[in-house]
Amino acid sequence: MTQLTDRPADAADPARPDVGRALLAPRSVAIVGASDDARKTTARPLRFLREAGFTGGVYPVNPRRETVLGERAWPDIASLPEVPDHVFVLTDTARVVDTVRECGEAGVPLVTVLSGGFGEGGPEGRERLEELLDVARRYGVRVVGPNSIGVVNPRNGMLLTANAAFAEPDLPVGPSFVASQSGSVIGALMTRAKARGLGFAGFVSTGSEVDLTLGEICEATLDDPEIGSYTLFVESMDNAGPLARFAAAAAERGRPVTVYKLGRSDAAAALSVSHTGALAGEDDEADAFFRACGFARVDNFEALIEAEALLRRIGPPGPVRADRIGVITSTGGGAAIVVDQLETRGVTVARPSPAVFRGLAALGLDVAENLIVDLTLAGTRHDLVLGALDVLRSSGEFDLVLFVVGSSARLNPELAVSAIAEAAAAGEVPLAAWALPDALESLRMLNDAGVPAFRTAEACAEAIAATLARRPVDPAVLGTRDTGAAEAPARTLDESDSAVVLAGLGVAFPAATTCDAAGTPAAEPAWPVVVKALSDRLPHKSDAGAVVLGVTGPGELAGAVRTITANVAAHDPTIELGGFLVQEMVGDAVVEALVGYRVSPTVGPLVMLAAGGVHAELYDDSTLRLAPVTAEVAREMVGEVTAMRIARGFRGGPAGDIDALVDTVVAVSRLAVTRPDVVEAEVNPVAVRPRGQGAVALDALVREADRS
Amino acid sequence: MTQLTDRPADAADPARPDVGRALLAPRSVAIVGASDDARKTTARPLRFLREAGFTGGVYPVNPRRETVLGERAWPDIASLPEVPDHVFVLTDTARVVDTVRECGEAGVPLVTVLSGGFGEGGPEGRERLEELLDVARRYGVRVVGPNSIGVVNPRNGMLLTANAAFAEPDLPVGPSFVASQSGSVIGALMTRAKARGLGFAGFVSTGSEVDLTLGEICEATLDDPEIGSYTLFVESMDNAGPLARFAAAAAERGRPVTVYKLGRSDAAAALSVSHTGALAGEDDEADAFFRACGFARVDNFEALIEAEALLRRIGPPGPVRADRIGVITSTGGGAAIVVDQLETRGVTVARPSPAVFRGLAALGLDVAENLIVDLTLAGTRHDLVLGALDVLRSSGEFDLVLFVVGSSARLNPELAVSAIAEAAAAGEVPLAAWALPDALESLRMLNDAGVPAFRTAEACAEAIAATLARRPVDPAVLGTRDTGAAEAPARTLDESDSAVVLAGLGVAFPAATTCDAAGTPAAEPAWPVVVKALSDRLPHKSDAGAVVLGVTGPGELAGAVRTITANVAAHDPTIELGGFLVQEMVGDAVVEALVGYRVSPTVGPLVMLAAGGVHAELYDDSTLRLAPVTAEVAREMVGEVTAMRIARGFRGGPAGDIDALVDTVVAVSRLAVTRPDVVEAEVNPVAVRPRGQGAVALDALVREADRS
Repeated sequence: MTQLTDRPADAADPARPDVGRALLAPRSVAIVGASDDARKTTARPLRFLREAGFTGGVYPVNPRRETVLGERAWPDIASLPEVPDHVFVLTDTARVVDTVRECGEAGVPLVTVLSGGFGEGGPEGRERLEELLDVARRYGVRVVGPNSIGVVNPRNGMLLTANAAFAEPDLPVGPSFVASQSGSVIGALMTRAKARGLGFAGFVSTGSEVDLTLGEICEATLDDPEIGSYTLFVESMDNAGPLARFAAAAAERGRPVTVYKLGRSDAAAALSVSHTGALAGEDDEADAFFRACGFARVDNFEALIEAEALLRRIGPPGPVRADRIGVITSTGGGAAIVVDQLETRGVTVARPSPAVFRGLAALGLDVAENLIVDLTLAGTRHDLVLGALDVLRSSGEFDLVLFVVGSSARLNPELAVSAIAEAAAAGEVPLAAWALPDALESLRMLNDAGVPAFRTAEACAEAIAATLARRPVDPAVLGTRDTGAAEAPARTLDESDSAVVLAGLGVAFPAATTCDAAGTPAAEPAWPVVVKALSDRLPHKSDAGAVVLGVTGPGELAGAVRTITANVAAHDPTIELGGFLVQEMVGDAVVEALVGYRVSPTVGPLVMLAAGGVHAELYDDSTLRLAPVTAEVAREMVGEVTAMRIARGFRGGPAGDIDALVDTVVAVSRLAVTRPDVVEAEVNPVAVRPRGQGAVALDALVREADRS
Repeated sequence: MTQLTDRPADAADPARPDVGRALLAPRSVAIVGASDDARKTTARPLRFLREAGFTGGVYPVNPRRETVLGERAWPDIASLPEVPDHVFVLTDTARVVDTVRECGEAGVPLVTVLSGGFGEGGPEGRERLEELLDVARRYGVRVVGPNSIGVVNPRNGMLLTANAAFAEPDLPVGPSFVASQSGSVIGALMTRAKARGLGFAGFVSTGSEVDLTLGEICEATLDDPEIGSYTLFVESMDNAGPLARFAAAAAERGRPVTVYKLGRSDAAAALSVSHTGALAGEDDEADAFFRACGFARVDNFEALIEAEALLRRIGPPGPVRADRIGVITSTGGGAAIVVDQLETRGVTVARPSPAVFRGLAALGLDVAENLIVDLTLAGTRHDLVLGALDVLRSSGEFDLVLFVVGSSARLNPELAVSAIAEAAAAGEVPLAAWALPDALESLRMLNDAGVPAFRTAEACAEAIAATLARRPVDPAVLGTRDTGAAEAPARTLDESDSAVVLAGLGVAFPAATTCDAAGTPAAEPAWPVVVKALSDRLPHKSDAGAVVLGVTGPGELAGAVRTITANVAAHDPTIELGGFLVQEMVGDAVVEALVGYRVSPTVGPLVMLAAGGVHAELYDDSTLRLAPVTAEVAREMVGEVTAMRIARGFRGGPAGDIDALVDTVVAVSRLAVTRPDVVEAEVNPVAVRPRGQGAVALDALVREADRS
């Protein structure tokens, strides 16, 4: 995906509105290619703008007609009585570049393009794209799309879209701004939100993002004071830089971001590739990136709508712990559904203390002591619900209280639902609610009262889990997304040189020396030793017979060197060995790990921790973060790799030196700061020794940009 | 949970209606404890029955009032002008037993009890339960509940329930019968189904099931010809026998069953335990049981509503393969959402062949060759959608075609949606649909046309995955759910005796002999050998130092016997050894496995296959089935244990003898048929050797009911 960078700032021309205003609050818009046939897709924007009562100027442009849909049609941009702030281009692909040129000549700051055929579909498409970018750059026009279904601001009736769903009357308004790489998804979010009384502050279908990327579009809206949060639908990650900048700015303003990304499965990842013409999805990298951005990533589509109210209610990451969620209900079965969904997502429901049950008893509530507070029939009495909520919230035991409402939510919101709504304003501990029956009116009432309310148990649990999984944004990490090294030609260092690079950052290696082809060591070895061939052409030394273990003295050392030399010659006679590494044997490890590092072309430097041996691959037992990481993040990573449970004393076995492993992860991750030329590195295996005895890198590999 | 078994069949009294008719089609009902205060829970059944226009006799019983809600109230059951078929008891717990006795004396066949306090809450509750069961048994009254919110038949207005949600007007009717262990869930299913135009054939809240269990209640409805499928909400499994009987009968009648069970997480499992007072959940056992029953188990709550239409459309397990699903759409982003959800549930979307794309091109559809058929804007043209569906369904490449409808589903069902509905009748390959926007009217239209349609992508994918995961019911397996052995006192056999039991079923063991305390073997050993102590008190021989490996001759054998004797004496001087096992050393295994067998008190005999070593526990890498299993099922099990990928040639390694492992699983599972007295058995490890070299049990343990 090509980016227009380093263009002159729009701010240079004071008469030209900034992209943010042109995007969502243009004084006037033009629609080029507006159809007179009301059934056609290209007739929709004019219809929608008029039906929604947009008060700015609206200029249909159609050189073949005097009027469209009963309004005067203009032959071209040049003939308009004023320069529109935002032009929506609905013409055939072939006419797009000329239209954008007309816009540029007239001084239009922003164009949204519906048609596809730019960059996709072979050399012709790529040529067309170059032309488009060239024209845009020359005239300083910014482009949304191509392949954009349009831009919507329901606050001012600016429905500059061809998405059929926006024929909807009475678009509701809410605090969140939607940026979506899928055009139909903006209609889905609007209609599904509307069904439960929720709305949005605006929608942009970002299309192919050949100029303005999703991150830049969000950045452009940061000055809009009515926007309280962001809702992102991402098909594939590319150019994370602007999105990282936006993430830091949004965090600073206290605006939470929810994201749904396609590509959890390989099939869908491949699908979004061919759908947008961008590079391979690499969902794990995107996941690490979103986490560093402080985004709440949800895997349930409706949670993308519903999570944002919870995010705003709870505020920045931190205060609410995933093991301090209280659940109260009038339906034990319903509450158990949510508990199941929460726990399978790693959220632990907190068992109320006996004091809480005593507090409830004092209200006359005879509640069985259990993981959840099941009020049964009393859960439909307004006063008792109020009282019970007060007991839970004032107990100091919960950071969030979730009320699961039973059948009364359907037809009797004046019972439990109104009590929950009333309680919302009265206490500090946030409330949330799920109604077991279909009860959209109750959800509306709760949302209006500031209680995040959910339609399904799955979306409820997903939103809570994603909200609590957020970590504070580290602007230092987001600021250093340098993907340059990923593209450069690279060379592999041999184990000894690799170890020098990593030891310099703090990775512990066994005591080692080298020896020559005669077996003469450079210094006295710490017997017993391991002997390995040194070569930048032997990344898999064991396979080539280039490693001999358990060498106990000088005679054996000379023998080991001869054996290795013969093995490597048999493996590949063209390899010239650069000497031999003579490394102290390390005692038994509690568990072995792999620490990896790479610069992704999409999101920049990453650090990985995985199980050693075959288990990382067999069980997909690994975790990934943007590099560099703090010790706190590295410790979180250790907690996410299943095999590392062994290091916490599994089945009565000894505990491993987790602190040392954490230090190793941090050290490797610092390549991102100290060595921007390193493309890839791996320490495998890291022997995690018993507690207090360290974590030792038994092999190392570094690939650096080739400066020769 | 206590069961009333072996009571005289109701059919013996021709004047008494069977339970099924009394349950859903009583000629008359009585409501004992009916309140005059319309706001009270106990006023609801009378109100609901009248509002729904139930045409049978309705007798409110309330000894303290002349009238309730304007109707004549009767003082007791004996004074009623006729014997009601079904009595709903809403009285306080203390009055329930007397009321049931009155019912028994009058000859009432079926009573549903709302109150709790039977079996739960200490000795008083247990005593009350015994009284209730005693009265029921004496008079031949069958009981639904206690803790039942009631029984509903929307087909005849028989709303004998206190669930507030049934104040709903115009209850829709559908083909599925709901049996739920949670009372509020029946209201949730009804309201959520109604919102998308779906209904049910009836609802029973099964409560504590002290007499009629969920399985028996479903059995009682089998003669109702209007019931086309079953929808079960299960909190905890107990007494699987009647449910297994029902499953076999439902399969025979071609009525599919969908089940949602609480307890995927340990926390929720514990919750349902305390909620119903039943034994621990053991979700994995229930899962194996449902699978043998041919049930479709869904983990998404709304899929419990929506899956049944798909199950009925697709019919019995078998013809639709999980790798022959075609996806067609007008919204690439929307389709990718479903593909993601399907693939993460193990359903593979099938890529259409070039011939399909040529067929589409012949219709003038220029569709990019991809995993899905994305019609883009053409997907809103009625004729083109019809044509494209015909191309896909007549290709022979798909067993199911899923249409993901875009924005047009919201306001323009006459475009794509009506075409899908029209196509449903025209072809044989089943269709299903998901609409990306909120589009309940379109879902209704599709459902009415026989196209299973889904509100969320998650429910859609879950329903498809659960439908395709079903396997044909094996009545032989379901018929042998003998849980008796689980309760009996048991004794452990030593390794040699255990091996005799399992070898007799076909489990392969190494060549072995025994030797005495002097190290004299009974027969010439196959050197080198492993020597192990024989004792029924040493289930973990290695921990006691009771195993010596690599013994190569008679002298070493004598030494090994001395070492083991000393080690065991040090470990536990009270253990008397029954001799020594002298076993041939087996060559390297490709992978090690564990094959286990146990008789569950809930679902009877089970066979397990797990990864060997720590991985079964560390990675939860195991799978479970009802025993006995066929080779086909055992092969499926091998496919479900991740570590067994190693046996399929992992990372270029050798392939293991999977056929022999399959034979071992089948052999162990046959304990269920041949040895009903065996409570538990384990072969661990099973060395899976290179292909053609077998799978050898290196240790064995059998526990059998103690007949001494």
